[in-house]
Amino acid sequence: MRIDMPMMKAAVLESPGHMKVKEVPVPSLKPDEALVKVMCIGICGSDVHYYEHGKIGRYEVKEPLILGHELAGVVAEVGEAVKHLRVGDRVAVEPGVACGRCEYCKGGRYNLCPDVVFMATPPINGAWAEYAAIRSDFLFPIPDEMSFEEGALLEPLSVGFHAMHRAGVQPHDRVLVTGLGPIGQMAVVAARLFGVTEVYGSDVVEYRRDLAKSMGITDVCDPMTASLQHQVSAWTEGKGVDVLIETSGNAGVITASTAHIKRGGKIVFIGLPAAASVGMNVNEIIDGELDVLGVFRYANTYPAAIRALRSSKVRIEDTITHKYKLDDIQEALDVSIHHKNSSMKIMIYPN
Amino acid sequence: MRIDMPMMKAAVLESPGHMKVKEVPVPSLKPDEALVKVMCIGICGSDVHYYEHGKIGRYEVKEPLILGHELAGVVAEVGEAVKHLRVGDRVAVEPGVACGRCEYCKGGRYNLCPDVVFMATPPINGAWAEYAAIRSDFLFPIPDEMSFEEGALLEPLSVGFHAMHRAGVQPHDRVLVTGLGPIGQMAVVAARLFGVTEVYGSDVVEYRRDLAKSMGITDVCDPMTASLQHQVSAWTEGKGVDVLIETSGNAGVITASTAHIKRGGKIVFIGLPAAASVGMNVNEIIDGELDVLGVFRYANTYPAAIRALRSSKVRIEDTITHKYKLDDIQEALDVSIHHKNSSMKIMIYPN
Amino acid sequence: MRIDMPMMKAAVLESPGHMKVKEVPVPSLKPDEALVKVMCIGICGSDVHYYEHGKIGRYEVKEPLILGHELAGVVAEVGEAVKHLRVGDRVAVEPGVACGRCEYCKGGRYNLCPDVVFMATPPINGAWAEYAAIRSDFLFPIPDEMSFEEGALLEPLSVGFHAMHRAGVQPHDRVLVTGLGPIGQMAVVAARLFGVTEVYGSDVVEYRRDLAKSMGITDVCDPMTASLQHQVSAWTEGKGVDVLIETSGNAGVITASTAHIKRGGKIVFIGLPAAASVGMNVNEIIDGELDVLGVFRYANTYPAAIRALRSSKVRIEDTITHKYKLDDIQEALDVSIHHKNSSMKIMIYPN
Amino acid sequence: MRIDMPMMKAAVLESPGHMKVKEVPVPSLKPDEALVKVMCIGICGSDVHYYEHGKIGRYEVKEPLILGHELAGVVAEVGEAVKHLRVGDRVAVEPGVACGRCEYCKGGRYNLCPDVVFMATPPINGAWAEYAAIRSDFLFPIPDEMSFEEGALLEPLSVGFHAMHRAGVQPHDRVLVTGLGPIGQMAVVAARLFGVTEVYGSDVVEYRRDLAKSMGITDVCDPMTASLQHQVSAWTEGKGVDVLIETSGNAGVITASTAHIKRGGKIVFIGLPAAASVGMNVNEIIDGELDVLGVFRYANTYPAAIRALRSSKVRIEDTITHKYKLDDIQEALDVSIHHKNSSMKIMIYPN
Repeated sequence: MRIDMPMMKAAVLESPGHMKVKEVPVPSLKPDEALVKVMCIGICGSDVHYYEHGKIGRYEVKEPLILGHELAGVVAEVGEAVKHLRVGDRVAVEPGVACGRCEYCKGGRYNLCPDVVFMATPPINGAWAEYAAIRSDFLFPIPDEMSFEEGALLEPLSVGFHAMHRAGVQPHDRVLVTGLGPIGQMAVVAARLFGVTEVYGSDVVEYRRDLAKSMGITDVCDPMTASLQHQVSAWTEGKGVDVLIETSGNAGVITASTAHIKRGGKIVFIGLPAAASVGMNVNEIIDGELDVLGVFRYANTYPAAIRALRSSKVRIEDTITHKYKLDDIQEALDVSIHHKNSSMKIMIYPN
Repeated sequence: MRIDMPMMKAAVLESPGHMKVKEVPVPSLKPDEALVKVMCIGICGSDVHYYEHGKIGRYEVKEPLILGHELAGVVAEVGEAVKHLRVGDRVAVEPGVACGRCEYCKGGRYNLCPDVVFMATPPINGAWAEYAAIRSDFLFPIPDEMSFEEGALLEPLSVGFHAMHRAGVQPHDRVLVTGLGPIGQMAVVAARLFGVTEVYGSDVVEYRRDLAKSMGITDVCDPMTASLQHQVSAWTEGKGVDVLIETSGNAGVITASTAHIKRGGKIVFIGLPAAASVGMNVNEIIDGELDVLGVFRYANTYPAAIRALRSSKVRIEDTITHKYKLDDIQEALDVSIHHKNSSMKIMIYPN
Repeated sequence: MRIDMPMMKAAVLESPGHMKVKEVPVPSLKPDEALVKVMCIGICGSDVHYYEHGKIGRYEVKEPLILGHELAGVVAEVGEAVKHLRVGDRVAVEPGVACGRCEYCKGGRYNLCPDVVFMATPPINGAWAEYAAIRSDFLFPIPDEMSFEEGALLEPLSVGFHAMHRAGVQPHDRVLVTGLGPIGQMAVVAARLFGVTEVYGSDVVEYRRDLAKSMGITDVCDPMTASLQHQVSAWTEGKGVDVLIETSGNAGVITASTAHIKRGGKIVFIGLPAAASVGMNVNEIIDGELDVLGVFRYANTYPAAIRALRSSKVRIEDTITHKYKLDDIQEALDVSIHHKNSSMKIMIYPN
Repeated sequence: MRIDMPMMKAAVLESPGHMKVKEVPVPSLKPDEALVKVMCIGICGSDVHYYEHGKIGRYEVKEPLILGHELAGVVAEVGEAVKHLRVGDRVAVEPGVACGRCEYCKGGRYNLCPDVVFMATPPINGAWAEYAAIRSDFLFPIPDEMSFEEGALLEPLSVGFHAMHRAGVQPHDRVLVTGLGPIGQMAVVAARLFGVTEVYGSDVVEYRRDLAKSMGITDVCDPMTASLQHQVSAWTEGKGVDVLIETSGNAGVITASTAHIKRGGKIVFIGLPAAASVGMNVNEIIDGELDVLGVFRYANTYPAAIRALRSSKVRIEDTITHKYKLDDIQEALDVSIHHKNSSMKIMIYPN
């Protein structure tokens, strides 16, 4: 470390369960990168999972790691090859930098790039810190009337947009969102922004169901007190929905998903189940000629989401239930873990 | 029954396990129907299943039923409103008559029509008989150089074509067909007719693997003696195939399917498993952003299959292992049940 | 004509320029048809064209013809085979009955059916009359809160919806509508209902530009006072729009269309030009890899449009500038012809 | 120029009409580039056009330029960051290097990248030279059994593949190729590799029509001696083809194109017309609901074309009519210009 190296504050996961706010070097820039002063950054379920368990699937935290990947901020410095950004620009950050050269990147599905460098996925540092560096084509200027909070929430909203693209959702489709956590809420918002007029949802937590209403959901079901299948049937004159977006990761919900769908309909899986194997009614997939579609992150969603959100009256920032300074990251994580049913999106403000 | 009503010979399933060849009335024609003299008709797995068990899923044989739905023949009579056919025309029969008026029919997915009248699906009679009547727009003239056998095989070939359409198969896709029974063989043929240059397959029966080679398969695997996963890896430089067509209905094969696929790839389910629930690796569907697509029968495949087959050198009639007269239907069924590993497609000749 | 045959009032085009309101027989019903008491029916540009010139392209009025095909009403009688409708149901009428059996119908593009029976296209009668009969699957119940006027306007709105489908319009697309007559207005509405946030338009008539604003257009251009190309450039930071919907039929506008489009963008042609040949910049189509897409009527739009419109706050009935009783059809036509710049949609009320 | 800089022989267009073979520096490599020893490189129509006229559309030769962009060769050197290639590998060269970062690149249409660096498009040098350098992800290893000639021809074949992708060509489509020059021949080959069984073509030159037969065309028409429209009607029972691929650039052929197409069919424009404006029958585009699709170069075609060609028996190298050493480039160009009707593809061998 050079004696004169500029330093910044960052929340570092030293080992599972041990988070420490400390000074680390400000990232140095490559010619095509920009440095972003982080104004607002969310806590995602994956961050919490790394904090608690140290790994997700094949990704394992082996060295101290900065978490966080849902962010917006201000451009603080640009590399010499950066042309479309200036210092001072307010930007949202798309946190995965794809190679641009593999068959997936060239084919328009860069979210599947095997060489993607994705923030807060070990061993790549995230941005629970004062600054973050990223290739400039993954920074998107946000309009003045868009808050940093909204800018940060473009990340989970992008998952919702990508689900819409994958399912080819049309305005007349009836959409059911199972699980109304942050991704589920954003799926509701995405469906509404795609012109969908009937969006239904289910979640066991009352607070989430209520919040979904302010996000524009048509109606909700508490599967603890009513049969979701009966409710779906009532909503759709017995036909089933056209598209189901599964965000809960709950094995029982996944198994039941084929029962809620119209013939020829589509099921989108986003929520990762804990079990390696989940029972599916394959006969219903065949007999109903269903499409079951996985969603992994997103691609080409930021410009679209910015444009759509800008013109909409939906207040996605109402999904934010808690706000903390970076120094209070531990408290933020504790709330996230111990108050699941009363918290939704938690925001950190490093600057 | 009118005293002068014309009669014909038909094989009637009186009750599960009891097949009887007897005289029944020749079907009368509606104005838009044609009567087909059945020259060649296959035995399908579903026919055998109704014969043995009396039902498939929600369809149950409650009254005596004529089975059989893979057929070609000669037009014997046309209704007064029929324009595009003449007596004597050689035709293939698409055995499911859709309503033409529901949202599925109007949307181009008439195979999902809830009011479809499909031969040999209770309570609709099939065509193991001297004659069959059907709405004339489901009859397709076949060229002189196409045999009745080929015409009858257009039905299972249509399932293969529909699988190609559902998966949007492109010539450069690598395709794996699991299960090389009649439908698997036809999936291989369909892939080849779509220009696919690498088609792989797996089946435990040697005879089927050998037959697939004459249908144009690139290479085969016996999953009893080699790991299919290792073999797929070897075939594809470790990448996995682009498209998997599952025709076996074997639960273990279905469960393993996600392991053979490239990221962004597609799995097509055709074979119905016996179990209501089959374990699926949903995490792999999500992480690999796979498409899992059901295939139920087919739509808009006959003209395409006729044109493709006509120009091809593939001899789909080589999948025929046994031929019987209608009077010998019982023997045909016995072979079908007791010689699964040495029989493939069995043909009945009612005229 | 039977002495006791029920009669109704209808506006009959006796020959070009000669319209006469007179008594004609109420249409008799086929088993699968319903009789609709016409509550509200629009005048379309094609109606006026037949009235003035007696023909459009290959369609020519050779015998007295009832015009009119944009209608809503109440079910007055149902044929014996009709199940999903009852007398008294409020319905919108999709005025073209496709055969359901040709390759286009079976493929989901029934608007291209060569045997379609389309109201007010010679020699098929339309519905400027007290009653009209139509196959029941082309009648769509409308909700109580939807007026007959809205129901009738579903017809031109369907053209807008079909244009959206043809172009695969996504919410983030920037759309330009050239020509803001009735079809242009409905294209604006359709774009908004598909979630599009930036819809631009051009028309030489001030009234039309103003009306488009109440239909939700983002901004408009008067091409007589400003260069549309400069305006499009200003709207899109010099990039051009993603999708252009051409409804004017003006040859100059068609020729200029390729100049307003982004590389990879789409142009949809709806408005029929008077000239058989119109100059196109084919080099721009190739260099920009554009899609130029024709739109002919629509398919599968009514259920979607009803659902979308029901949930929307847009008041498409504000496009109605004049209302007349059937007896005053001549005055309605005169206004339509001589007050093009101050009239938009004119409605007739036969009952 | 450094005294010890390695030099190579190259054909340099000094000014329109003046070609000179001379020594120039071997290109230096960036870390992610590879140097290719050029074994075989074609003359494309665009090369000849630059040679004769000095410009094509907005691209103008202002400084001495090396032409040529259809090549295959052997890897001679690799940059330090190159992993998937080794010195000695036989490779085909995709000659346009896209940025990988713009919306087109990220969306899978990198052929529309505004920052693409395309060989032999001013001011970018091509490869009529002993060596060429290019970013390594645009080099594709070719199998041992594929000749360098075939490798070089993958470039024009890619245009044919891209046309198939743009039109979504299916095996049962009937395809008409207008213009049977090198691109037209490759369109025929591409259609055949996509499983198309009926490919028709038209050209005024007998030699080209004959050659197309060896490329697998079904039938050809000489439009000087027979009406193409009558011929198309005869080929298709009066229906018209499903897809027309226009490669001639002839204005009359372009204008007539809509007359040869079935309703709902597709026209693909590849050949650039000389005139800025070409008359199109827009009414037929609308009435037939046609798709008119521009094709600009190609994207994601090389791996597909290599795989398809490897398994095929078609001999695309039979389109080569002349072969020259680099020193004889002038003679090659003269043949290309003065013997259009007896030459097809001309190959240059710089090493």
